[in-house]
Amino acid sequence: MNSSQKPVKGRPKYIVLTGGVGGAKLCQGLARVLEPSQLLFVVNTGDDFTHLGLHISPDVDSLMYALAGLSSRERGWGRDDETWNCLETLKKLGGESWFRLGDRDLALHLKRTADLAAGKTLTQSIASIKKGLRVKNRIVPMSNDPVRTKIDTDEGMLSFQEYFVSRQCQPKVNRVVYQGTWDARMASSVHTFLQSAELRGTIICPSNPVLSIDPILEVEGMRDWLRFPHTPRVAVSPIIGGEAVKGPTAKIFKELGKEVNAIGVAKHYGTLLDGFIYDRRDHYLETRFKGMPLPARSTDTLMQTDADKEALARNVLQFIDDISLENVFGKLEPYDA
Amino acid sequence: MNSSQKPVKGRPKYIVLTGGVGGAKLCQGLARVLEPSQLLFVVNTGDDFTHLGLHISPDVDSLMYALAGLSSRERGWGRDDETWNCLETLKKLGGESWFRLGDRDLALHLKRTADLAAGKTLTQSIASIKKGLRVKNRIVPMSNDPVRTKIDTDEGMLSFQEYFVSRQCQPKVNRVVYQGTWDARMASSVHTFLQSAELRGTIICPSNPVLSIDPILEVEGMRDWLRFPHTPRVAVSPIIGGEAVKGPTAKIFKELGKEVNAIGVAKHYGTLLDGFIYDRRDHYLETRFKGMPLPARSTDTLMQTDADKEALARNVLQFIDDISLENVFGKLEPYDA
Repeated sequence: MNSSQKPVKGRPKYIVLTGGVGGAKLCQGLARVLEPSQLLFVVNTGDDFTHLGLHISPDVDSLMYALAGLSSRERGWGRDDETWNCLETLKKLGGESWFRLGDRDLALHLKRTADLAAGKTLTQSIASIKKGLRVKNRIVPMSNDPVRTKIDTDEGMLSFQEYFVSRQCQPKVNRVVYQGTWDARMASSVHTFLQSAELRGTIICPSNPVLSIDPILEVEGMRDWLRFPHTPRVAVSPIIGGEAVKGPTAKIFKELGKEVNAIGVAKHYGTLLDGFIYDRRDHYLETRFKGMPLPARSTDTLMQTDADKEALARNVLQFIDDISLENVFGKLEPYDA
Repeated sequence: MNSSQKPVKGRPKYIVLTGGVGGAKLCQGLARVLEPSQLLFVVNTGDDFTHLGLHISPDVDSLMYALAGLSSRERGWGRDDETWNCLETLKKLGGESWFRLGDRDLALHLKRTADLAAGKTLTQSIASIKKGLRVKNRIVPMSNDPVRTKIDTDEGMLSFQEYFVSRQCQPKVNRVVYQGTWDARMASSVHTFLQSAELRGTIICPSNPVLSIDPILEVEGMRDWLRFPHTPRVAVSPIIGGEAVKGPTAKIFKELGKEVNAIGVAKHYGTLLDGFIYDRRDHYLETRFKGMPLPARSTDTLMQTDADKEALARNVLQFIDDISLENVFGKLEPYDA
């Protein structure tokens, strides 16, 4: 997905925290304007689960398919060139068919499951699979250790997939728990990347803060590192005009008693941020953002075309540059791109 | 696959030992002339193996597909209505693709693997899968315990699939070993069926005697039971004119120092048989069969059409009836159907 145009060249490196489909769009934009060596995508694996004996990593797969240019636009998940013969047959045989496994997608899960059974780490398996998909960007799981996001709802404790797919986000969320984070270590490639002299900033993608980004932050060492960074940390709001572009972010924010808008997202991340980007449609929030100690910018964050993705990526990178300069030359004024 | 014509009705029951595709054809014929309650198909599971984390039972599947009318005539294995999108993608991802897994076939393996992981026996899983395939006949594995056929060759000890698929039966066979048979018990439904008062006979299908039938005979209790039966035991030769209809039977017979013809097959089973059926093309063996203490008949055993399968099934059943009568009225004359 790297375009031939690469205006931002050379050194600076960025670590990018991302979850599912929304985050993957910004990653695509970043991959279009930066060299693969400049980016490390750290992906949520709290939604990983075992289904029919297969290890499934939904967010990693969404990102790989997006970067390979294989994502289905119509469906919003999975591959574009998909067939469903296995799933249809499985249904006839009385097998579990609630999770929509395409024939081609299945190959990826079989490969990963075989890799893990052979003793490879998730990082190694992803590296091998993305090579097959001709993706050149570096993609690492937030941890090679298992973390499982559980949703404490009015129907009891549900796994992410039970909540998201089987129950279609209908139960009321009381609390979200990230099982395994205490024992989960950052993938070693994240450590190495964080220590590189060229690191220019951290980007938090417009993914669900509670379900996709928080699990990453909970991995041992990650939040600590983000608390004392040498470089700016910038997040993009996944909520536009009081609604999430996709998924249950708005509903969950409401149920958790958070303000359902970009302010709520900025407050959720709190002091972990040096900059915040919200949508130009939410310009009415400008005064409130001006009253906060966090530099914020509004721009077009709704990524429908590749050009949209690329434009948002450039805005995020520019914002990081501006914050870096501010650290040298003094306070930064909010601005509207 | 049961035809509307069912001339052999009612009581008598038959236990049928079978392996892969060749055996499945006679089973189809039997299923066309008998009621489901009259038949118990006991299937070789020595070729079962785990591939990409999936439990694969090649012989059970061949029989289920045959009885469901789904077998591919062109390929000689697998389903007719098959697609290969998962396998093609797996290949691109660098996954193991030597075993030809079709998209629809895959569903069956996923279902079985999930069933076994959930604590079901292989018998229970087969019962559930064949229901989905609308197969009414009773199909049981020779054992719910694992038995693995290993081939001791001039290239070392190979698993059945390594020998059969990866090495395409090329290595010279010194010996065949059935790992696990000492601990493997007959499926309980076989026990029950063997004790039924209506049992009229045992049929050994034209499967590879060494690779498909012997593993069944090695399961604890099976050979002992066959040694002292109350009812006739009849086998059909898988070798016609010095060659196997399909597969490596002739080559293996030669390498094990056995005579590569119907006589060699009859001698292989030895005193376990009360009757033997060989192909009319091997009529030249008649004199030699007359010199043996085993009643033998020649008929058309090459099953190309459903009518062929049905005709052979009727011949086998008639032969069993004749042997039963002989037990009452005296010696049976060899005859040419």
